[in-house]
Amino acid sequence: MWMQRELTLRPRERGFHLITREVLEGLPELRELRVGLLHLFIRHTSASLTLNENASPDVRDDFETWFNEAVDEDFRGWTHTLEGPDDMPAHIKASLLGPSLTLPVRDGRFALGTWQGIYLCEHRDHGGPRRLMVTLWGESR
Amino acid sequence: MWMQRELTLRPRERGFHLITREVLEGLPELRELRVGLLHLFIRHTSASLTLNENASPDVRDDFETWFNEAVDEDFRGWTHTLEGPDDMPAHIKASLLGPSLTLPVRDGRFALGTWQGIYLCEHRDHGGPRRLMVTLWGESR
Amino acid sequence: MWMQRELTLRPRERGFHLITREVLEGLPELRELRVGLLHLFIRHTSASLTLNENASPDVRDDFETWFNEAVDEDFRGWTHTLEGPDDMPAHIKASLLGPSLTLPVRDGRFALGTWQGIYLCEHRDHGGPRRLMVTLWGESR
Repeated sequence: MWMQRELTLRPRERGFHLITREVLEGLPELRELRVGLLHLFIRHTSASLTLNENASPDVRDDFETWFNEAVDEDFRGWTHTLEGPDDMPAHIKASLLGPSLTLPVRDGRFALGTWQGIYLCEHRDHGGPRRLMVTLWGESR
Repeated sequence: MWMQRELTLRPRERGFHLITREVLEGLPELRELRVGLLHLFIRHTSASLTLNENASPDVRDDFETWFNEAVDEDFRGWTHTLEGPDDMPAHIKASLLGPSLTLPVRDGRFALGTWQGIYLCEHRDHGGPRRLMVTLWGESR
Repeated sequence: MWMQRELTLRPRERGFHLITREVLEGLPELRELRVGLLHLFIRHTSASLTLNENASPDVRDDFETWFNEAVDEDFRGWTHTLEGPDDMPAHIKASLLGPSLTLPVRDGRFALGTWQGIYLCEHRDHGGPRRLMVTLWGESR
């Protein structure tokens, strides 16, 4: 079984956002899989996807604070500054975190750990809607 | 052919640990694949997986030293401090390195480079046992 | 349908290099897939793969500048120095960016975003040719 579809995520402010529920709601076919994998792929170079703690909003705030310090808008080395001060840091953050996640599926559900949630990492001040290409494959129930 | 199983790794101290042999011993079915892929997925948000140099233990020591400097426990920006000073840095390190590896399999063996080994990256002082969800799929020999 | 093959990339200087076209030319089978995935895996521990902006060469220059500042050859904590000052930073950069990419394929083409290109990240001064293990799987057209 193969399923591939584009999902569009509504615009979010710069920061780290929990999107597990939104992804699940866009994937009713997940329930039909006995064993398989889900590939989530973001079709942009200034936003990214990661997995992390799904309970405390302050964890997501600390992600934003730390990444802003680690990849400084005021870094003197930037030469690609035409698209604004948030652009080049967004590209670096996107590659540090990565454009995709591959998640195990078992008996119609994600086989994640208890505390794992899917984050949309929006690195731009005004990123707009973000498009995911979602691919699900495996053996049916 | 699909195989999916949980593997539990014994507790290890904070740092970077070579686990290639332990993973292989838990996957006898690998030998049956002619061509395929192995997906290793850690079900935690304060430990991670990466591939790196499998020969010199000082490489793994330098990983621990560098990541502790880059993601400082004393960073003034942390607000999520309830679970100890090693907790929030562990979440950031886990997302920088990532929760999963996808490895090519060919003729019953990993098709890795000569120097590539699988690292468990334990970011907590007392992380305990770590659970992997392992998925193997491809064509049989 | 499964296809797996080794591709060798010609030597490149230290830095970030766009290789989308070179990868496509090595994969004529891609056109036969209706839906599937491509896994690109680099068999080295001092070079890596990422996706990022495919238009402006100054973005790739800024990647090199930022990573050299973030993972400093002169970091006082290095103990693995036997293979030269560029070696240990190369290992860290390789794990930050990762050894593989999984890309969606649809109707015989990559389903990437408009601005996404494949980067070879060469972290060594004289890395030489780099070997990729390429795996393509999915449903034929």
